[in-house]
Amino acid sequence: MAIEFTVFKGSSTGDIVESHGRREAGPTQVLVKITHSGLCGSDEHFRHADQGLGHEGVGVIVEVGSRVHEVSDFKVGDRVGMGWHQKFCGHCKQCVTGHHTLCTNAQSFGGANLDQGTFGTGVAWDVSTLNKIPDEIASEDAGPLMCGGATVWDPLYTSGIKPGERVGIMGVGGLGHLAIQFAAKMGLQPVVFSSSDSKKEEALKFGAAEFHVTAGKDKLEGIEPVDLMLITTSFLPDLTLYLPVLAPRAKIYPLTVSGDNVQVPALALISRGYQIIGSNLAPTYSVKDMLAFAAKNNIRPQIEKFPMTDSGITEAMKKLRDGKMRYRGVVVV
Amino acid sequence: MAIEFTVFKGSSTGDIVESHGRREAGPTQVLVKITHSGLCGSDEHFRHADQGLGHEGVGVIVEVGSRVHEVSDFKVGDRVGMGWHQKFCGHCKQCVTGHHTLCTNAQSFGGANLDQGTFGTGVAWDVSTLNKIPDEIASEDAGPLMCGGATVWDPLYTSGIKPGERVGIMGVGGLGHLAIQFAAKMGLQPVVFSSSDSKKEEALKFGAAEFHVTAGKDKLEGIEPVDLMLITTSFLPDLTLYLPVLAPRAKIYPLTVSGDNVQVPALALISRGYQIIGSNLAPTYSVKDMLAFAAKNNIRPQIEKFPMTDSGITEAMKKLRDGKMRYRGVVVV
Repeated sequence: MAIEFTVFKGSSTGDIVESHGRREAGPTQVLVKITHSGLCGSDEHFRHADQGLGHEGVGVIVEVGSRVHEVSDFKVGDRVGMGWHQKFCGHCKQCVTGHHTLCTNAQSFGGANLDQGTFGTGVAWDVSTLNKIPDEIASEDAGPLMCGGATVWDPLYTSGIKPGERVGIMGVGGLGHLAIQFAAKMGLQPVVFSSSDSKKEEALKFGAAEFHVTAGKDKLEGIEPVDLMLITTSFLPDLTLYLPVLAPRAKIYPLTVSGDNVQVPALALISRGYQIIGSNLAPTYSVKDMLAFAAKNNIRPQIEKFPMTDSGITEAMKKLRDGKMRYRGVVVV
Repeated sequence: MAIEFTVFKGSSTGDIVESHGRREAGPTQVLVKITHSGLCGSDEHFRHADQGLGHEGVGVIVEVGSRVHEVSDFKVGDRVGMGWHQKFCGHCKQCVTGHHTLCTNAQSFGGANLDQGTFGTGVAWDVSTLNKIPDEIASEDAGPLMCGGATVWDPLYTSGIKPGERVGIMGVGGLGHLAIQFAAKMGLQPVVFSSSDSKKEEALKFGAAEFHVTAGKDKLEGIEPVDLMLITTSFLPDLTLYLPVLAPRAKIYPLTVSGDNVQVPALALISRGYQIIGSNLAPTYSVKDMLAFAAKNNIRPQIEKFPMTDSGITEAMKKLRDGKMRYRGVVVV
């Protein structure tokens, strides 16, 4: 038993290349027929690499490996979601303390979806990093939650921020528009910072308590400080501008994947007790709770759909690159 | 009742200037006759300012204010230690959650010892930020603990690091030589990074488990990663060199007071889940526990003594500036 699949890969020229393969289910793997995949900004980083793209996949289980029933209750017909393809040992310190995405014995998986990209029609996936999609969430909406949703969820879920506290959100895009919704439904105060007011109306609709335009400002004044700041812009901002709006001991999460340095004045960091926290891929248990929370609180991405073809993917990636996606692209088989 | 005092201040020329004054005890203040004061690297930042220097003071209470007996058990004759002169409101969110040194209603106190510097003979001090010195600790040793000791203690005390975990310590100086001792006595593994091997023997004597020379290295290899890193060097290091020796989710504390930016590659921060944490002045309750721990575990600074005169202070500050202090200067009345 096996699955024949198509996968769309990057290439040295940056063109999207269609490839074909066949994969059998390992003992603890399931074969998943992909129906949808979200498009994430970090796919762009691998467009010039010979590897499968896509890591916000949703599909239906069509076959289970020989031991799947021993280690999980996944079964044929289940609708499931897949993020980054992760291999982890399960017994190192990171794994056993709930941080398997930082497994110290893992084979490199950052970007190494290889031929397992979810831009395609099928994958073999280990059940340890698989999540069931709640019935309330449509498959096309579930895709963007698998990476984008989980990325903004995890800091809010783990930081210790308390009800009513203020969450700064820099940027209203694929991540930001989900962050506003999660923060609002958690009883936090989403305080949005955006370069212009073009997204103000939508941000308020998503649940923003405040919307502040940053363009042309060399100082942010008259704003009550935020307790936590999520950086979701496509480029790392100059943090100096934001220092006056950070409360003492504010936690700053740069979620932007960038080749640049995160920089902060040492004196401000020390004298105000700020924390800059690197937040990696959300562990599977966290994604599970995120999906349940999104289902119960009607949190959904605002999406644009594209066909699962090389031209469909090319068009979607260009739109994202040009900053015109409102707010997350979903590629549909 | 009042205390007549001498205080040594900075000046626009950088010369140490002797000044005199007289101070009465406010209702919740005590008058302290200073006997010793440690010299901290951050005093250098105020050498060109018209304000009292010194914030590692030790002395004896000679008078108590009218309400001191209502709010504390301090009494005349008590041997006490004083760090930075702090004013805090006692009721803001930071104050009531144990972080009074980050009080949002405080008048500026960073560096604002003003005429209350502990380089001198007497101060009036509010009992809310006063600590008794345990009998086991000599006054000359207690001085450097009041800021230097507290600064390296607080991250180890609050970070959640666990017995047997590895603490990287960059730099063996006024802070570093105390950090090694505290970490060792806490059952942690102190892993020292120093530019040369000139301090290796002493570092091992202080309790270092490992000593690594960094000069000339463009890569640190073959070192088991550390779970927490204290930066105690006089200049901020290039963190890129240290990335290979940081365990996933390592907590990095830049303790160096610097006008520069702390910088870390965003990709490493995110993919490894690092945390960069600004650690401010230790709250008074933390200093109290630090002093008790130092007393019980025989943790003492290695000091060099200088007279409490303008020339004594000038000499001490020059020696520290030249990187020749082994390891903490103490000015003695």
